[in-house]
Amino acid sequence: MDKYIEQNKERFFNELFEILRIPSISSSQAHKPDMQRCAEKLVSQLFEAGADKAKVYPTDGHPVVYAEKIIDPARPTVLIYGHYDVQPVDPLELWHTPPFEPEIRNGAIYARGANDDKGQSFMHIKAFEYLVREGKLRHNIKFLLEGEEEIGSPSLGKWVRDHKKMLACDIILVSDTTMISEKVPSINCGMRGLAYLEVEVTGPDKDLHSGHYGGAVVNPINALCSMIESLIDEDGRITVKGFYDDVMNLSRKDRQLLGKAPFDKKEYMDSIGVNALRGEKGYTTLERTGIRPCLDVNGIWGGFIGEGAKTVIPSVAYAKISMRLVPNQEYGKISKLFAKHFKSIAPKGVSVKVEEHHGGNGFLIPISSDAYAAASKAIAEVYGIEPVPSRGGGSIAILAEMQQALKADPLLMGFGLERDTIHSPNESFLLSQFFKGMRSIALFYEYFR
Amino acid sequence: MDKYIEQNKERFFNELFEILRIPSISSSQAHKPDMQRCAEKLVSQLFEAGADKAKVYPTDGHPVVYAEKIIDPARPTVLIYGHYDVQPVDPLELWHTPPFEPEIRNGAIYARGANDDKGQSFMHIKAFEYLVREGKLRHNIKFLLEGEEEIGSPSLGKWVRDHKKMLACDIILVSDTTMISEKVPSINCGMRGLAYLEVEVTGPDKDLHSGHYGGAVVNPINALCSMIESLIDEDGRITVKGFYDDVMNLSRKDRQLLGKAPFDKKEYMDSIGVNALRGEKGYTTLERTGIRPCLDVNGIWGGFIGEGAKTVIPSVAYAKISMRLVPNQEYGKISKLFAKHFKSIAPKGVSVKVEEHHGGNGFLIPISSDAYAAASKAIAEVYGIEPVPSRGGGSIAILAEMQQALKADPLLMGFGLERDTIHSPNESFLLSQFFKGMRSIALFYEYFR
Repeated sequence: MDKYIEQNKERFFNELFEILRIPSISSSQAHKPDMQRCAEKLVSQLFEAGADKAKVYPTDGHPVVYAEKIIDPARPTVLIYGHYDVQPVDPLELWHTPPFEPEIRNGAIYARGANDDKGQSFMHIKAFEYLVREGKLRHNIKFLLEGEEEIGSPSLGKWVRDHKKMLACDIILVSDTTMISEKVPSINCGMRGLAYLEVEVTGPDKDLHSGHYGGAVVNPINALCSMIESLIDEDGRITVKGFYDDVMNLSRKDRQLLGKAPFDKKEYMDSIGVNALRGEKGYTTLERTGIRPCLDVNGIWGGFIGEGAKTVIPSVAYAKISMRLVPNQEYGKISKLFAKHFKSIAPKGVSVKVEEHHGGNGFLIPISSDAYAAASKAIAEVYGIEPVPSRGGGSIAILAEMQQALKADPLLMGFGLERDTIHSPNESFLLSQFFKGMRSIALFYEYFR
Repeated sequence: MDKYIEQNKERFFNELFEILRIPSISSSQAHKPDMQRCAEKLVSQLFEAGADKAKVYPTDGHPVVYAEKIIDPARPTVLIYGHYDVQPVDPLELWHTPPFEPEIRNGAIYARGANDDKGQSFMHIKAFEYLVREGKLRHNIKFLLEGEEEIGSPSLGKWVRDHKKMLACDIILVSDTTMISEKVPSINCGMRGLAYLEVEVTGPDKDLHSGHYGGAVVNPINALCSMIESLIDEDGRITVKGFYDDVMNLSRKDRQLLGKAPFDKKEYMDSIGVNALRGEKGYTTLERTGIRPCLDVNGIWGGFIGEGAKTVIPSVAYAKISMRLVPNQEYGKISKLFAKHFKSIAPKGVSVKVEEHHGGNGFLIPISSDAYAAASKAIAEVYGIEPVPSRGGGSIAILAEMQQALKADPLLMGFGLERDTIHSPNESFLLSQFFKGMRSIALFYEYFR
């Protein structure tokens, strides 16, 4: 595919940038028209690339893009899953160039979605185009690009179940994850699940003057802080009752296998600018992010947060709290356990509301499959080294649901790197990974029969 | 004064509303021109009321309004202290009418500053006008209306020391506090001090994807919550080392005297919509807010606080934290103790910055003075009941400094009520209190010789 890339590079950038320029932030209602616009643009690009059918499907939420080229029902069918929605962009002031004005500098594409997941999905469209135009297509290809991944795919589960027949496939191919490094390519063989909740702690029924009431009234911010503090014990374990009941504990052998992935603690700390790490007692850093659950506050707010000083005891304080889950934790069950626990630890003098945002289950991928072997062979050829299996700490909420509905396993060929800072300012995608990804995908079809 | 009020009521409202319409929020740089405009308007109102001299004085911060009428240097001089700056207005959506469009409804004036302190200061201007126009003025009167009370009066201390001679007086008369209720009038005989700080807790040098890093990295929000939790122990005592060293402990007799103020716990809880109270062990609610120090988080923020969900471990989390102090705690010393303590409790993996916002010391007022007796007599005549001495939990940072610089005691004749929700949405001032206040002030001059 090298030659094809060389000849079409400029056009690839132009087409990808058209998509990147659309601010398809799924969590914001204000961007609803952008979601539709982005979906329609993808449909036209999929037709251009060679799809026989490409269509925007409405859902209960943001639309789904579906496209296909069926060459022979007897041949294996690959369903490519990706998403065209992106994370919010704040804090905007930390971006070096505007998030929706893509730019190439220092050998990388910079933009919100450059990697996650517009850039990674785009590699599949171009690998497909290459196979079609060069007459090399040997598989039936289906594309499912959704618009709600970053908000937990609330509508896609139902849509997939409603379109099971159309989506029937042998594997679900996904590029929406990272590999360890360019020198240590890896294939993800499992992901964590997610339970995401928002809590609201209310004290007095209005904001109070902190001088008049301070010392006598339960301050909801102080109360929220104490409640959050109590969620993780000194061993780094989550105190929600029943939280660990269903956690799949890995055998010593499995832990040894995963422990083979290279890890440099100093390099890891330097890359995020910290001088210490902390997590669950008895586990390594990679285990803490790969095979163990965790709890993080993703946002907190309450009281006066403007410039200067205001002496107030606020009426309400809020936090967004999420837990990463591992197989076999069920996110619905965990969300309920959390809500019950959080209400139970509220001190007298405040009331608590808990709202479930979204979630998904973790899953494992068999590494003994033909698809895994083909991906491994393709990546080894492109990178010159055999990829190692790894466990991703992130979540793609919908994959466990699709795996179940379509009776097909996902295969995660991710070409992102930690340096790409997805979800953060200055998201990027290295050009070398962008092109190696396309080549690996094209080769995958050669080895997957 | 009843007749004078009756005849001039409409004009009083019009004049006060002119002042209330100016959004003189001292904590916001954007409102700097409004500060000047408000000061100039007050100068013209003070001239109208009968001052011989009235002038806007620039300071290092917002301007001071000074006015005087000297009838005879041999007569006692009363310096009226007030402030024309107001608190911010957020959350704006909770106001029933816009904060800077004053309205009279249900027997009260509604606006930001209606009470604190434009409305209360205005009573003094009108009582002064009455005495001048009716030929009853027997005192030298000086007005000092500042523009930085709500931000801790950072410039006024120096300005007062620079103008000591001009400000020389026998008492400092202030209406910037509340009384217990219309049925239980009270005179404030002490206020708490204040130390206000802002803290910043930084973890990783950028926002991180909570899936990739969750479980291994110290989340600065979780860390901030734990640090805040540890600031108050289970007996409701502040854990900052050395915090209680200088606290003036009241004698049993003094506590018994203050305990005579009527207090209905259920009514108190109902008025703020809570079902439980909490504070320092061993003290009553009124003691907790009057004679004991306390610590409150006034604001907290960090991470993703927009609509929806974002799976992020933020780089930074912030909080505004203030402590109410009692005599003889010195706010500068307490701020330093807090900063040192807060840094010392930071877990590895985060760094901490602490910024001092502002502060002031608490003070006591002798209740055996002629001025107190005159105020008590005046209020008793207007309300039909003798007022009780009380201790206010709030702070007027500058009064301790003025007391020292001018060698004169403050006298706090406050006519606010808790229902007025100063510092909160829908700040108001009961018309009955507004007029009783004017009458009490006019009578005070009759009894203070």
